[in-house]
Amino acid sequence: MTTAKNYDQQIHKLRELLQGIDYGMFTTVDEDGSLHSCPMSISSEINSDGTLWFFIYASSHKVKEVEHYQQVNVSFSSPDCERYISISGTAQQIKDRDKMRELWKPELQTWFPKGLDEPDITLLKVNISKADYWDSRAKFKPQTISFMSYA
Amino acid sequence: MTTAKNYDQQIHKLRELLQGIDYGMFTTVDEDGSLHSCPMSISSEINSDGTLWFFIYASSHKVKEVEHYQQVNVSFSSPDCERYISISGTAQQIKDRDKMRELWKPELQTWFPKGLDEPDITLLKVNISKADYWDSRAKFKPQTISFMSYA
Repeated sequence: MTTAKNYDQQIHKLRELLQGIDYGMFTTVDEDGSLHSCPMSISSEINSDGTLWFFIYASSHKVKEVEHYQQVNVSFSSPDCERYISISGTAQQIKDRDKMRELWKPELQTWFPKGLDEPDITLLKVNISKADYWDSRAKFKPQTISFMSYA
Repeated sequence: MTTAKNYDQQIHKLRELLQGIDYGMFTTVDEDGSLHSCPMSISSEINSDGTLWFFIYASSHKVKEVEHYQQVNVSFSSPDCERYISISGTAQQIKDRDKMRELWKPELQTWFPKGLDEPDITLLKVNISKADYWDSRAKFKPQTISFMSYA
């Protein structure tokens, strides 16, 4: 069983791994069963409850894909640091204005020129079940962080 | 309909986009329906028949995942060049020693210390159906290359 202390250490480790990486490749399953990914800017660090949040347009195809099939993967690559991270989990749309205000950062203006006044803006919340990472220090031996066994 | 000339241009464009990127994040669907990715070294440029090849251990879990569910995604990130590529397709294991000799490159020794003498070595062939890419020059507006309509 994962203890609360271990869990906090895992969150801390994952935050450390993601430092300096701005975009993740967000992979979803389309209705025809094919897999698609697109770059998405992380709106915050990993939350202490093991969630990751992204701003997105509510009318986008990605939101439809997530509604159809909740399982997703977000991968992060830092070729310069030779660090690669895979985050597996389930995603859901959360249209919560308070949460949006909490997570908003000016860099997101590039994607949402109207900011939080954009009527079509929403959030995707990813509940992380597992993270795998590879880095050159560990000679690319895969390391796993599991979020499943913590209650 | 995609003409042969257009098709060649698409392959050329995709090769250009992947230049300087050594690793792709290869996403597959596990038996429980969850999505996992791992870094994989491209063993060659995109072939003129719209395929991409990777060396892998035949006994690895990734091969089992592909046998169970053929749809995959390979994403490529170049944060320095602000370039992100998503390749959707189907994957299959091809244990062809001649093809392995054709594709082998010395850098792969890091992953396969025994080289082509490794008895557990095999190839994953990805038949590309669609590629999407985003770059800063196009202000991250998604661009699509479709490989479906060429016969």
